[in-house]
Amino acid sequence: MTSGYTVAIVGAACTAGTELVKILEERAFPVHKLVPLEPRQLIGCDVDFNDEQIPVQTLDRSSFKGIDFSFFVSSDDISREFVPIAVSHGSVVIDSSTVFRMDEDVPLIIPEINPHKIFQHKGIIANPGCLTTQMVLPLYPVHCKARIRRIVVSTYQAVSDRGEKAMNELTEQIRNLYSFQDVKPEVYPHQIAFNALPHVDRFCDNAYTDQEMNLINETKKILEDPTIRISATSVQIPVFYSHSQSVNIETARRISPEEVRGLLSETPGVEVEDDPQHNVYPLAIYATGRDECFVGRIRQDLSVNNGIAMWIVSDNIRKGTALNAVQIAERLITN
Amino acid sequence: MTSGYTVAIVGAACTAGTELVKILEERAFPVHKLVPLEPRQLIGCDVDFNDEQIPVQTLDRSSFKGIDFSFFVSSDDISREFVPIAVSHGSVVIDSSTVFRMDEDVPLIIPEINPHKIFQHKGIIANPGCLTTQMVLPLYPVHCKARIRRIVVSTYQAVSDRGEKAMNELTEQIRNLYSFQDVKPEVYPHQIAFNALPHVDRFCDNAYTDQEMNLINETKKILEDPTIRISATSVQIPVFYSHSQSVNIETARRISPEEVRGLLSETPGVEVEDDPQHNVYPLAIYATGRDECFVGRIRQDLSVNNGIAMWIVSDNIRKGTALNAVQIAERLITN
Repeated sequence: MTSGYTVAIVGAACTAGTELVKILEERAFPVHKLVPLEPRQLIGCDVDFNDEQIPVQTLDRSSFKGIDFSFFVSSDDISREFVPIAVSHGSVVIDSSTVFRMDEDVPLIIPEINPHKIFQHKGIIANPGCLTTQMVLPLYPVHCKARIRRIVVSTYQAVSDRGEKAMNELTEQIRNLYSFQDVKPEVYPHQIAFNALPHVDRFCDNAYTDQEMNLINETKKILEDPTIRISATSVQIPVFYSHSQSVNIETARRISPEEVRGLLSETPGVEVEDDPQHNVYPLAIYATGRDECFVGRIRQDLSVNNGIAMWIVSDNIRKGTALNAVQIAERLITN
Repeated sequence: MTSGYTVAIVGAACTAGTELVKILEERAFPVHKLVPLEPRQLIGCDVDFNDEQIPVQTLDRSSFKGIDFSFFVSSDDISREFVPIAVSHGSVVIDSSTVFRMDEDVPLIIPEINPHKIFQHKGIIANPGCLTTQMVLPLYPVHCKARIRRIVVSTYQAVSDRGEKAMNELTEQIRNLYSFQDVKPEVYPHQIAFNALPHVDRFCDNAYTDQEMNLINETKKILEDPTIRISATSVQIPVFYSHSQSVNIETARRISPEEVRGLLSETPGVEVEDDPQHNVYPLAIYATGRDECFVGRIRQDLSVNNGIAMWIVSDNIRKGTALNAVQIAERLITN
């Protein structure tokens, strides 16, 4: 190995892939050679990295020869097919799809929480869903201190999760509505402009969506506590970047809002923004482009004895996806 | 009295007032004479009612002489000052402000739930907040059947609550953002376009907002059960009409999602829209202009043994305000 690593990004031209390239550059990850890959042929599409223009290559079974790290930020189908191929070529895969997250053999990592698990990998390390990462990051110290027994979460999700097509759909619908034209939903099952859709991902038999169940199951896996009981409602709203979450927790031991504020103000990756009398609380528009997970409106949950309510906001593309993936790779090379 | 009643509307030119006039006409409320009132002088402003153009009069202390019913849909300050004056002139007041809702002497009415309380009034009948009405209407039959012990609610609120100025602010911010101009929030403390604001109304000492506490207290009063424990998070989102709510309840007796669906399908004023596999669930854009309170995504709350999660949507201006007020007046004249 020369002065750095050969790094492949599968999905390099998508919203999360673009952000991933930016973060590798920002954080000076030691990249010897960057290999941007896309499943479909994108002729003439380049990726800007360290003042270089690197052409996007079409993903195939031979793409992973000599690759040290492969970041997958494409679809579940692409991960399902190509992650095992990358691993068979000796690449370490940091996968952002949902495919491997619940596999017992695959560590599910938020580096601030469970970095010790990274080295148990057998070729694949899973990057949690963006909803999980931003919720668990601030809940972890509270769980350590007061043992979380129950979580009720309702989300306010940005359209950038579904990439550029979804962002364009929101813009186009707004334009159409203001010019009295029909709205034709394509990415979403219904109009997303000026609406709130309680439907993200496919519905399971229990009437929850796959995404809601992923949030529930990933949270239990990362906190290593299958006894925590969780209910989730995922809602898409007309916001471009950053997911917000209204979270109510119940704990075994009583913990005050002040104690939670104190704990979180010392938690790496978390920033407390909680001065409502001066209109200070986390907001999607301000969290965008930031690395931190912002927490505010921390208060007693009035519906239960040992309960805390809070409002959590984080950039779904950065800490929610690309940043967390790069942080995992950083741990791999520094330990 | 001739063939109908003399009816005053305080706030006749605002969003809720306009809707109120429309609903009085739609439902053929027996109006002998309509007196539209506004606190500020609105020269040349007419209200259309039954093919008549009725000039808006400026509210003053003598406005209520000979008025049978006074609907107040203006501000808290206006209600505080003028409701007692209206009552002293012998008018029955149906007040939509927050001022009198928790007074022991003032019935707080959702006609489908507690019509028997209407006649205990001493001149004032309070119209609940729009968040309360749409949440309690479907929860009431569940409470009767299974005794609700706990409610956790997170809201997704439309800007029309704050009237035309707020709706114009959303439109203007969108226009400014798409033309790369600055956004200057006036009605809201922060940008509302493409954002989610966990802040509606003033903050109390306990870090909840007045609106959240109103929802909590009004729910207990209407359900006549101060032992129900409730936590609420009010959130403003960039939607024009209809509030959505993610609601988790815990009950004393176990009740299944099927039983809840069955109960609600027989509840007047409620419509079940719950076929998620076919993308059917309540949506703000479809609830707008409708009288019903729509309920869907009814499912087991996975975080508790006796729990149900649901998604409730209703037009905040119609059932949330104007329609409920008119329904109260209808009960007064038919009993």
